[in-house]
Amino acid sequence: MKLVMGNKNYSSWSLRPWLAMSHAGIAFEEEPVRLFTPEFAPHVAKYSKARHVPILVDGELKIWDSLAICEYLAEKFPEKNLWPKDAAKRAEARSVAAEMHSGFSPLRVNLPMNIRASLPTTRWTHVVQRDIDRVIEIWTGLRERHAADGPFLFGEFSIADAFYAPVVTRFHTYQVKLPALAQAYADHIRSLPAMQKWIAGANTERDFLVSQEPYRHVPDFADPIMVTGGH
Amino acid sequence: MKLVMGNKNYSSWSLRPWLAMSHAGIAFEEEPVRLFTPEFAPHVAKYSKARHVPILVDGELKIWDSLAICEYLAEKFPEKNLWPKDAAKRAEARSVAAEMHSGFSPLRVNLPMNIRASLPTTRWTHVVQRDIDRVIEIWTGLRERHAADGPFLFGEFSIADAFYAPVVTRFHTYQVKLPALAQAYADHIRSLPAMQKWIAGANTERDFLVSQEPYRHVPDFADPIMVTGGH
Repeated sequence: MKLVMGNKNYSSWSLRPWLAMSHAGIAFEEEPVRLFTPEFAPHVAKYSKARHVPILVDGELKIWDSLAICEYLAEKFPEKNLWPKDAAKRAEARSVAAEMHSGFSPLRVNLPMNIRASLPTTRWTHVVQRDIDRVIEIWTGLRERHAADGPFLFGEFSIADAFYAPVVTRFHTYQVKLPALAQAYADHIRSLPAMQKWIAGANTERDFLVSQEPYRHVPDFADPIMVTGGH
Repeated sequence: MKLVMGNKNYSSWSLRPWLAMSHAGIAFEEEPVRLFTPEFAPHVAKYSKARHVPILVDGELKIWDSLAICEYLAEKFPEKNLWPKDAAKRAEARSVAAEMHSGFSPLRVNLPMNIRASLPTTRWTHVVQRDIDRVIEIWTGLRERHAADGPFLFGEFSIADAFYAPVVTRFHTYQVKLPALAQAYADHIRSLPAMQKWIAGANTERDFLVSQEPYRHVPDFADPIMVTGGH
């Protein structure tokens, strides 16, 4: 299997299945493609008409959505328990993951994933605050209930954690203040060896995606490559 | 089981699990709640903190996302084959459904579901056209491949069809011109007894949701109730 994926610094959608596979110890190759560059569209078109990453390629099969990829992995590797084993917990974990999949657009747009950057701020509109509050509510509620079962949202690691990992990095980049239980969860996710590996990869990238940088015009890292597509 | 759901005229998210259950012959009760009215928030808060409909209530279990509901139904009623039986087809059907679940926001915002209305237009921006083209591409490609297996996207009915049913109604409301194969698919979905029942229900509703009516200020049906929330 290989995962066609965007820049580690910016591609929040790619992080989700990448983390699910990496944390669970599922073997795969990475096939990076640089977002918003001229090479992006022809590269992705080899696998999918949907013009998005990530794409999981497994032989002849191409799966072009992050949640569909995770569902496929959960079916293909049942021993990895990517969803909780209990049916009620599994339904709740899917609600949590799917809520992220379809929602939170104010949070996405205003606090885009940008792992390498540190852009502390306390200014955002009430719709962004509502999204932040909802994430805190989800994390806190689940951690309270599942504290005895392990350090993840449902105790053991699940796809739900993979879906909120990009938010963990956003809260870090923009230094969003969190209550203790939510901060402890975020810290735990960041400390995972797989997350540390992703973050290290992001820190070596040189692309500066202008469309994903609403808060700065000048890169603060060495040898940047300015990428102006994506608007 | 009961489905807490929004107005049939406007609630595209509610239509998806409703259609999956109704078409498949899964028994459930409807619990309607009027979108954007003062009664909405307290009603929904009884079941979920996510502030959205639909919500499936099955005993103690509450599932608050349309895709998570459909996955739960697919597991609970395996004999209904809500996903294709073949693993590769199932992965593709999940990609198609999840692409709709996370994307197409220009289409959603500019051509909101409004079953009762007829608002023919040919004016929209290129990002809306790109969404329309992508829907046509999905429908046409799948219908070409699965024509021999039945009249749905993957031959037999699946959750993928339920996820595109709201788009079928949008194309009808705004009279979007479709190529023959896509139009035939749309006509088939509209002709389903379950869809006809939903449409009949929408036609009896009296709420006029100002936030969902970008193209008219005056209702053209009898005894309207103006609902100004939702902005």
